[in-house]
Amino acid sequence: MTEIVLASNNAGKIKELKALLPAFHLLSLKDIGFDLEIPEPFETFEENAKEKAKTIFEFCGKNVLADDSGLCVSALNGSPGVHSAYYGGHPRSDEKNNLQLLTALKGNINREANYKAIICLYRKEGVHFFEGTCQGTILEAPQGNAGFGYDPLFVPNGFTQTFAELPLEVKNKLSHRGKAIEKLKAFLDKA
Amino acid sequence: MTEIVLASNNAGKIKELKALLPAFHLLSLKDIGFDLEIPEPFETFEENAKEKAKTIFEFCGKNVLADDSGLCVSALNGSPGVHSAYYGGHPRSDEKNNLQLLTALKGNINREANYKAIICLYRKEGVHFFEGTCQGTILEAPQGNAGFGYDPLFVPNGFTQTFAELPLEVKNKLSHRGKAIEKLKAFLDKA
Repeated sequence: MTEIVLASNNAGKIKELKALLPAFHLLSLKDIGFDLEIPEPFETFEENAKEKAKTIFEFCGKNVLADDSGLCVSALNGSPGVHSAYYGGHPRSDEKNNLQLLTALKGNINREANYKAIICLYRKEGVHFFEGTCQGTILEAPQGNAGFGYDPLFVPNGFTQTFAELPLEVKNKLSHRGKAIEKLKAFLDKA
Repeated sequence: MTEIVLASNNAGKIKELKALLPAFHLLSLKDIGFDLEIPEPFETFEENAKEKAKTIFEFCGKNVLADDSGLCVSALNGSPGVHSAYYGGHPRSDEKNNLQLLTALKGNINREANYKAIICLYRKEGVHFFEGTCQGTILEAPQGNAGFGYDPLFVPNGFTQTFAELPLEVKNKLSHRGKAIEKLKAFLDKA
């Protein structure tokens, strides 16, 4: 199994997955001729990841990988969570999302958060899920230009730089997505 | 048991312990007429804490509390650890210690560390130990003027301020020493 369709329109996510899966031939939604928005209607990462993967699998019949991920902030009882992508409203905007998060946390000294990713592998042989989390802290102001999503505000535990400042190879070793992909690789190696 | 001698000459440590143990009558080494340096000759926090407590117990016969604590940095294989107090050389200086730590970590992006405290309660009824740890990150430059030791460089996980910036009541809830004292209090409540 080396050919997989990535069920995502998020350029930042696709870039990371390509770096994390160098041995695979990854197809984009454009490559398979799918040009719609994929819905994320559910209240769990698992259901959203599965829905995205299923939609694409049913469209093309190939092996599919979907990632649903988000930021869970302790002082906000786990928000924005599955609503991370549209936390600042529609249309989707990293800048608005980050601003919304800073507003929600304003004056709060507890900045504890975790990034969570659920990867769904959808094949005719079956459906599998791989989870990764990364603990960190939300800054009071954005730092760095790399990455995407809440990366300019998120400092992983043990580091002083945000995910938008750390080199991608460092982020990919630490990140929720990197950890989930490690589990996927271990699963595929055993299979 | 409300009267306890604190086996320490460290003003910062004494200040914290007084705030953490408001229901106790805490005696200083000066109060009991002990005016020597207490040795910390061992390679574990437990042995050092016990040695300090034992020295004072044998001097005065009263209930004694001793705290041996230090900073363990992942990228330095756990150093300075039990050598935290004199890491920058003799005589003891927080400034020299902090500078030594920054030098040792220079250019290292992995800044993961944990503060560890072992509290030893030494009484004629027996000897008990209470442990507390606090995970955090070492900054590239000091921030804040409160606290002591490596506090200006240590940001506890989930926060953006150092232990030298956070209010003492916040530090005491999070800190290695605060957690160890919580265990001590629970033990004394049950006894």
